[in-house]
Amino acid sequence: MRGLLIVVSGASGTGKGTVCKKTLDAMPEVAYSISATTRAPRPGEVDGREYYFISRDEFKAWIADGKFLEYAEVYGNFYGTPLNKIEERLNRGEDILLEIDVQGALNVKRKMPEGVYIFLLPPSLDELKRRIEGRGTETPESLNRRLANAVAEIKIGLEYDYVVVNDSVDDAAAQIKTIIAAERCKVERNRDKFNLEGAF
Amino acid sequence: MRGLLIVVSGASGTGKGTVCKKTLDAMPEVAYSISATTRAPRPGEVDGREYYFISRDEFKAWIADGKFLEYAEVYGNFYGTPLNKIEERLNRGEDILLEIDVQGALNVKRKMPEGVYIFLLPPSLDELKRRIEGRGTETPESLNRRLANAVAEIKIGLEYDYVVVNDSVDDAAAQIKTIIAAERCKVERNRDKFNLEGAF
Repeated sequence: MRGLLIVVSGASGTGKGTVCKKTLDAMPEVAYSISATTRAPRPGEVDGREYYFISRDEFKAWIADGKFLEYAEVYGNFYGTPLNKIEERLNRGEDILLEIDVQGALNVKRKMPEGVYIFLLPPSLDELKRRIEGRGTETPESLNRRLANAVAEIKIGLEYDYVVVNDSVDDAAAQIKTIIAAERCKVERNRDKFNLEGAF
Repeated sequence: MRGLLIVVSGASGTGKGTVCKKTLDAMPEVAYSISATTRAPRPGEVDGREYYFISRDEFKAWIADGKFLEYAEVYGNFYGTPLNKIEERLNRGEDILLEIDVQGALNVKRKMPEGVYIFLLPPSLDELKRRIEGRGTETPESLNRRLANAVAEIKIGLEYDYVVVNDSVDDAAAQIKTIIAAERCKVERNRDKFNLEGAF
């Protein structure tokens, strides 16, 4: 049986990364899709673990070779999802969790509508502002741009399948875990169980 | 917000009743939809708790008055789901669990496609046979009829949203609980959370 593609997205600063890490810790059978990016690593980030950190030239070559499920430019940096690796893993029956920005997720949804699309909301706009500020990597100008973007991005969330509010990382991760468990029970993913000739 | 209609069905003898009882015990916020029937109460069954036990004449009057969401004749007895009570409760925001036979559930699905349709499978046909025999209320003839019916009914399960195998009552109830929790996260049921003017 083909694996489940689980796409987790949300406005910039919503806490996608932390929530996804917690979810994956609780579900070791779910594999993480690693993106490629041209942005510089943040302290503690390791090439091949958080991202494949590649140069702009390399990124353009990957685009030309059709190696991306999707890619996007966000705040001057490129981010992309290696298609070939995801397909390989899904066909092997692995469930893959893909953490991705809002626009990237929509592109994936067009190509793989059978995926499970989860939108993460911050508890409030004030809290979102605090989180982006707290990161300490923003100028006042980039902070305002991010907030305006967040408001626009959140409206796109209405096109997703599920919504989870990131009040607490533990609760949000638990809800994503619940959604994945429920999706595994979908009839369309379990047609073999209705085969009366076989095991049943 | 309107409540969730959760419909649990499955072939006769699959253990719907036991699994639903366990689910409701674990989710006191979910209300049980009580059906009306013309069949005689089994030992331990109480009018207004397991069923509304009514006469055939009364049942026909309810049909004429449009009081049923659906009704069906099963093994010579009538079963029906009182529409007015379910609508009232959903509009009050209550989640309602409806345990119903396979054909009845399909009728409900046509009228209320926004519901959550869960199909319960027995672990195997042999196990299903044992369960129906174990009930001790069947003649050999009615047992064979029930088994043939079960095979036909199970194929109808492909039209449902979710499938749960009743290997153990605890596991099956836990899976239904998971499905309900996930459905509460559906974007279409949480559009208010994307309203940036209000709480968010």
